[in-house]
Amino acid sequence: MRLAFASLAVLTLAAAPPPPPKTPTPAKVRSPGDAVKAAPATDWIEIPAADLLVMHLAGGKRVVIQLAPQFAPVHVANIRTMARSGYWAKATIYRVVDNWVTQWGLGDGPFPTPPGVVARPPEEYQRGPAGLTLMPMGSPDPYSEMGAYADGWPVAKQAGGTVNPTYCYGAVGVARDAAPDTGNSSELFAVIGATARRLDRNYALVGRVIEGMENLSALPRGTAEMGVYAKDQVPTSITAVQIAADMPAAKRPRFEYLRTGSPAFTDYVQLASHRADYGVPSPGADLCAVPVPVRKKKA
Amino acid sequence: MRLAFASLAVLTLAAAPPPPPKTPTPAKVRSPGDAVKAAPATDWIEIPAADLLVMHLAGGKRVVIQLAPQFAPVHVANIRTMARSGYWAKATIYRVVDNWVTQWGLGDGPFPTPPGVVARPPEEYQRGPAGLTLMPMGSPDPYSEMGAYADGWPVAKQAGGTVNPTYCYGAVGVARDAAPDTGNSSELFAVIGATARRLDRNYALVGRVIEGMENLSALPRGTAEMGVYAKDQVPTSITAVQIAADMPAAKRPRFEYLRTGSPAFTDYVQLASHRADYGVPSPGADLCAVPVPVRKKKA
Repeated sequence: MRLAFASLAVLTLAAAPPPPPKTPTPAKVRSPGDAVKAAPATDWIEIPAADLLVMHLAGGKRVVIQLAPQFAPVHVANIRTMARSGYWAKATIYRVVDNWVTQWGLGDGPFPTPPGVVARPPEEYQRGPAGLTLMPMGSPDPYSEMGAYADGWPVAKQAGGTVNPTYCYGAVGVARDAAPDTGNSSELFAVIGATARRLDRNYALVGRVIEGMENLSALPRGTAEMGVYAKDQVPTSITAVQIAADMPAAKRPRFEYLRTGSPAFTDYVQLASHRADYGVPSPGADLCAVPVPVRKKKA
Repeated sequence: MRLAFASLAVLTLAAAPPPPPKTPTPAKVRSPGDAVKAAPATDWIEIPAADLLVMHLAGGKRVVIQLAPQFAPVHVANIRTMARSGYWAKATIYRVVDNWVTQWGLGDGPFPTPPGVVARPPEEYQRGPAGLTLMPMGSPDPYSEMGAYADGWPVAKQAGGTVNPTYCYGAVGVARDAAPDTGNSSELFAVIGATARRLDRNYALVGRVIEGMENLSALPRGTAEMGVYAKDQVPTSITAVQIAADMPAAKRPRFEYLRTGSPAFTDYVQLASHRADYGVPSPGADLCAVPVPVRKKKA
């Protein structure tokens, strides 16, 4: 079809006015990616295998989530316990809401959780600043006193002094009912649209997707109430969920992130906040528009 | 499968500790949706049929785009001319990049455009404030001096006094090469991920998707360079593109938006910027997280 149309185009081209001369392509300026590429190997920190949750999906696809024990230790411990016990062996991805979230788990229960799972974890929506080195992001943040990075995560410092992780694209949170203590990490969701930062400090943030995001974001949207899959829709099966540390070393996924506050990271944040590589630079940027660089670690 | 697991759950439930008592669900507070629902019919403004671009896709799906002649009049005129001439009769959706954009058109050309199409439109990336009534959004905007609404659109007022529309989720822009004048609106893209506001003032914004967004956002991601579909991927066919004003009155889609600056709109922006219906309200919100309410108009 395209070829046929192209041939037609050639036939009619002679009658068309000559195309105007093109403006020269502007000189290349440094992009945020250039700063990341220039980072020395020593500026990359490997993510611990105990912090990688590997979800295997039907069809041989997978999703890798970096867990955030710095911010939600009890919820993350629950996730590790559930993964190791096979709790999610029959889980599915059953809810997809455009410009909002994709959600998975066993669905309506309650289902008995394995021994060791804390049924009612503390809120863990924010924490004190002790032990965290905050690097200010530099742009105003409408959701807090200051957007920043800490320990490889985009965070917000609140006027009261607490620090919370932020619901940027790919962030993984704990689904719950309206009462704030009803989530135990058995049902999780990932942000698949524009910022979901109205969830900050209201839902426990337990990680972020670092591989296979498209296996959550490109799924058909649910047509039943609240974006849950209707009876005529087929939820995606989750065939296994593992902690990378429990996988054979040769099969483990390995990832590393650019060290918060390293010269290359600082350079990257500066370039990404005032991008000049498109033309007109902006005065600043959203915290979520300047994500922490994460990449596969070469063996 | 789910049922089998549920039965097993019943067998083992007896051994599990009793679930902790639930915290009571908090009292319902007003949500942004409540403000929108309370708006009187007179606060809704119908979008002109000449400003609705209807893209029919293979499989009977469709996407409706509200055009933005207030911000990009020459580009929008080009779009109307191309739609009316059948220019896009062989077009496809051929590029999908996760957390970025979905792009469509005829692809690599050049293809001759119909008479009346301006080959090299002016930039139209921003405009003067004359004729626009700006309603400040109220939260700090990292991409400008002030985030605001004007004429039913989320806009940014720059320090120099110009106003530009903003690349929020669903915004439609004009693809181009690196030279800033090479887009004529024949190839378009929509934002399908987190904010793309680094495109503000660098790519002409010509509209926003107001129906069928999932037909662009839930497509398989392209696996070739730049997210273009690889040879083993099937682009979605665009079967027809029309301006609603050219459709029979009975078949025209009709939409209306909540009048910028109306009491209900002001109430909505206030509630959406400091949402208390999730629990902890935020000090502010992203401009893109508080979109202008748009709905189908009842006949």
